[in-house]
Amino acid sequence: MNRTTPNLDEVVRDIAAEMRARTDRGEVATYIPELARADANAFGIAVIDSDGHVAVGGDSETPFSIQSISKVFTLTLALGMVGDRLWRRVGREPSGSPFNSIVQLEREHGIPRNPFINAGAIAVTDLILSRHQPREALGEILRFMQFLAQDTSIIIDEEVAASELRTGFRNIALANYMKSFGVIDNPVDFTLGVYFHHCAIAMSCRQLAMAGRFLAHSGRNPTTGLSVVQPERALRINAVMLTCGHYDGSGEFAYRVGLPGKSGVGGGILAIAPGRASIAVWSPGLDAAGNSHLGRIALELLTKRMGWSIFAG
Amino acid sequence: MNRTTPNLDEVVRDIAAEMRARTDRGEVATYIPELARADANAFGIAVIDSDGHVAVGGDSETPFSIQSISKVFTLTLALGMVGDRLWRRVGREPSGSPFNSIVQLEREHGIPRNPFINAGAIAVTDLILSRHQPREALGEILRFMQFLAQDTSIIIDEEVAASELRTGFRNIALANYMKSFGVIDNPVDFTLGVYFHHCAIAMSCRQLAMAGRFLAHSGRNPTTGLSVVQPERALRINAVMLTCGHYDGSGEFAYRVGLPGKSGVGGGILAIAPGRASIAVWSPGLDAAGNSHLGRIALELLTKRMGWSIFAG
Amino acid sequence: MNRTTPNLDEVVRDIAAEMRARTDRGEVATYIPELARADANAFGIAVIDSDGHVAVGGDSETPFSIQSISKVFTLTLALGMVGDRLWRRVGREPSGSPFNSIVQLEREHGIPRNPFINAGAIAVTDLILSRHQPREALGEILRFMQFLAQDTSIIIDEEVAASELRTGFRNIALANYMKSFGVIDNPVDFTLGVYFHHCAIAMSCRQLAMAGRFLAHSGRNPTTGLSVVQPERALRINAVMLTCGHYDGSGEFAYRVGLPGKSGVGGGILAIAPGRASIAVWSPGLDAAGNSHLGRIALELLTKRMGWSIFAG
Amino acid sequence: MNRTTPNLDEVVRDIAAEMRARTDRGEVATYIPELARADANAFGIAVIDSDGHVAVGGDSETPFSIQSISKVFTLTLALGMVGDRLWRRVGREPSGSPFNSIVQLEREHGIPRNPFINAGAIAVTDLILSRHQPREALGEILRFMQFLAQDTSIIIDEEVAASELRTGFRNIALANYMKSFGVIDNPVDFTLGVYFHHCAIAMSCRQLAMAGRFLAHSGRNPTTGLSVVQPERALRINAVMLTCGHYDGSGEFAYRVGLPGKSGVGGGILAIAPGRASIAVWSPGLDAAGNSHLGRIALELLTKRMGWSIFAG
Repeated sequence: MNRTTPNLDEVVRDIAAEMRARTDRGEVATYIPELARADANAFGIAVIDSDGHVAVGGDSETPFSIQSISKVFTLTLALGMVGDRLWRRVGREPSGSPFNSIVQLEREHGIPRNPFINAGAIAVTDLILSRHQPREALGEILRFMQFLAQDTSIIIDEEVAASELRTGFRNIALANYMKSFGVIDNPVDFTLGVYFHHCAIAMSCRQLAMAGRFLAHSGRNPTTGLSVVQPERALRINAVMLTCGHYDGSGEFAYRVGLPGKSGVGGGILAIAPGRASIAVWSPGLDAAGNSHLGRIALELLTKRMGWSIFAG
Repeated sequence: MNRTTPNLDEVVRDIAAEMRARTDRGEVATYIPELARADANAFGIAVIDSDGHVAVGGDSETPFSIQSISKVFTLTLALGMVGDRLWRRVGREPSGSPFNSIVQLEREHGIPRNPFINAGAIAVTDLILSRHQPREALGEILRFMQFLAQDTSIIIDEEVAASELRTGFRNIALANYMKSFGVIDNPVDFTLGVYFHHCAIAMSCRQLAMAGRFLAHSGRNPTTGLSVVQPERALRINAVMLTCGHYDGSGEFAYRVGLPGKSGVGGGILAIAPGRASIAVWSPGLDAAGNSHLGRIALELLTKRMGWSIFAG
Repeated sequence: MNRTTPNLDEVVRDIAAEMRARTDRGEVATYIPELARADANAFGIAVIDSDGHVAVGGDSETPFSIQSISKVFTLTLALGMVGDRLWRRVGREPSGSPFNSIVQLEREHGIPRNPFINAGAIAVTDLILSRHQPREALGEILRFMQFLAQDTSIIIDEEVAASELRTGFRNIALANYMKSFGVIDNPVDFTLGVYFHHCAIAMSCRQLAMAGRFLAHSGRNPTTGLSVVQPERALRINAVMLTCGHYDGSGEFAYRVGLPGKSGVGGGILAIAPGRASIAVWSPGLDAAGNSHLGRIALELLTKRMGWSIFAG
Repeated sequence: MNRTTPNLDEVVRDIAAEMRARTDRGEVATYIPELARADANAFGIAVIDSDGHVAVGGDSETPFSIQSISKVFTLTLALGMVGDRLWRRVGREPSGSPFNSIVQLEREHGIPRNPFINAGAIAVTDLILSRHQPREALGEILRFMQFLAQDTSIIIDEEVAASELRTGFRNIALANYMKSFGVIDNPVDFTLGVYFHHCAIAMSCRQLAMAGRFLAHSGRNPTTGLSVVQPERALRINAVMLTCGHYDGSGEFAYRVGLPGKSGVGGGILAIAPGRASIAVWSPGLDAAGNSHLGRIALELLTKRMGWSIFAG
């Protein structure tokens, strides 16, 4: 190892240690008890490079609620089903608003700004449902995650899903609002049932980093050789992640980390270093924009030390 | 040359020919007569790779009004003067609104969302003015452009500046609105005078691509070896260009082109392929979001054929 | 009769004839088939003066869907139940927005601007429900209308209610959105069930004018002598009707008609000339703000000829 | 005197005493030093009935800055000049926003919602200017006030006007914003110069109540018999005052006071009891909506005790 090629394992180990020691940890989401119970001191990281080598640190094997990170995979699945017709139902511009804002929908005739805010992901889920009964749709999403992560032990946390269903009034509002504009085809209960369940998938950092590999490597898993999407589609999903993946903190994430990424309210972030690595971090404490506080900091350190920013010359 | 390394000169020549032939050319800006007079059939492109090789096509030597592209360079200059304190006056999130929206300013206490919408660029210009008298500030900006492009023939089109000053009521509104929140320090007339003048700088594609080289190469011009900014600052300016460089069409530009870029209402776009090339295109017809219609299409073809998208694995 | 005291019967008869002859009749609401079937040529008017004299014209005995006019009566009923605590749940300012806007709710933490926009009326209905089971609450509202109109034949049009329930996605969105802020106490389905049903009450102009008499006479029916509310409450309900009773056309109604009034999408308007008369008009065609086109014109003629504007000296 | 006809002098005297004793006095405006110097303990009231009898209390003879109350008189003057064409430049709906909001202008193409918010009053002033040079226009406005109040000693406080000119960046923004939509014809500096000066007119409660008499009596001063406007125009100005006269507190003022009225940031309120009286109150402390705190309370007591609410039966 020389100075220009830092050792990934060492870098990941150092970052995990640094994160473990920090006292600023953000605020754990409390809107449902299942998330509120998360350990604020948890931190995990897993990085899989193009050779398939996995570098891990901290609580990399602990499953957590992936929440909005699932939106990357439902987008991929829905694009496979309906192709670019998907973009008639959802835009691909940053929203300039919080994740659950309804203002933009009123101004723009019920078309969500992008597939990574709640309204957009609900519209995408509705498209998947148009091809399947709810139970089948959910099964397809779960099997897709298990296939991508090559791990059939991945499950949906039914308690999380049930809690979301009981208290998700804002999402019910978003879905009905879109339906009033004809943007949702299926009964709102069906669409939201599937949506809340795929947000409740539980995965570890290792599993999540594995699932994201196709995005780092032109749409295919370089180890198995299995193709998930065409190369152009993979890079375009990355583009949407970069501009829209962190709600109203997307600009900040691009500025500091310099990688496409998608965060979830459970404290996870999936980040993609194109051609280099698929990365998952997890720390339950969130910043003001609703993104993992230490997760973002860890990714900033990682890209800096590895020189992985997509904006670097 | 094999299939994996396309010849840049050929690609650029082909694109210029394709663009020349297209009949969909967008709408030329008409809000001032000087811009309205632009030739809708014009198209120019210049690409400078890391070796300093320049590939050109079409009207690559014709000067045009760079307009908002100047915001990249005033941001660079202001960061050099005041450092990261600049970010107290302007954010770095996409706006989710048109380039001249004032709504966001009311909601966010006069702090513009980013330095590439009009309000943000005016606030940045005001910071430059805080170190200089108006005439000196303008001289410094122009000399900076000449230095970057290595071309002392670059000038300000005084007629364009005068027209903007006479009719720029919306920008006068934005500046006064910010001043009511204390975000503008200098007399509004001074700040806007400098702002309108630096937007009125006229450059050719070749000059513009030359001026942008430092952003593609870690902050320095690889040919002269002269350093403009630190590497980290260069990549962060690229990040802001990617998320905010095309107003409310930034997501679309990232999705289709996959490069950091900044457009101007004169029909120019500066785009950066980090580590690879600095690119300038120009075609006066604009799309609905106010960005060069053929310019964007040409860049999409270029990144696809050269494999330059920053999102590709 | 001299020139200063025009004959009410003649004035009403003349207005009915004029309205019958007009060809500009607005657009009938079509969002549910039951409303779309309304006869665009219908026009009815009933005016009851302080002596109990009833002047009628046109289709004054034809029942129509009172829709949002019911909001005046549910507000009265809810104020009787919970008193001024009601105003913790709903404001009393004009909204500056269409009747079903959700933008204001996001800005103002789920508190609707006034009880006469949809969100506000849903919140008021929810307060009534907090004292009753849904079926009882609905029975109480209907009996209140029958009591005020002194007519037990008034019924709810179940087909209208069923249609609204099937298609009222925007109202479902509003209710869930408020519930996410804790502004709705009961299950949304219960609250909306009662809301859609009281909007589906069918009444004739004569019945509606009778029901509104207490508002014109310090809270009591001057014929029966029965008190409905305290005098101060009656005048305050009138005040809210004047500033908020016609959605984003409230200023226009005050300017042209000069009376407190409340319109419904079924084409009815209840207007109050304090101390003088209770007035109901009906014509199904609506103007751009969603208020009865001919209804407003008829009221403008009436107040002008009778000298009833509350703004006249 | 019996219980049904309270003595106006006594009522006014009692209210003045009550107001003098209260310790909740609101917050004096501080945005310019001239207003900040106002005595928070001041309170004045003047009521002129239809016989011309003047009842006064407190500091009824002390001149204060009438500020936005001048908007009632410039509206009257402009309607006299251009007639109902005025309404092409300004609406007559409540804004649902603070007095100096610019958001609504962006949504509604630069047309202010009503003539009593700042933007609307600036547009009205611009119409007056279209008939006059700035100095003449200002002279005409001042002479109109002197004529209405029958008092040639009324003057403009030049220090207030100069302060507003120096610091009124938000109003400069509003005017330029409207000009960008073509809603302002004259140079912004001219229009704002006149606007700031007519807002700086200083009057006592007695003078102001006198000036407002025509609005209470069908457009003419019942003592002099001089007609100012047609009866219909007077009642329509009253209607706009009721729905829009207190910014985003207009609904509250209608609900509590029940009279058309217009407030100013100097702490004055002009209120009209049609057919009965013209009323002016003054107390510099403001409530959260920017209206005189004690002024509103005094008017609420007055209308209650005198039975003057226009909503009473």
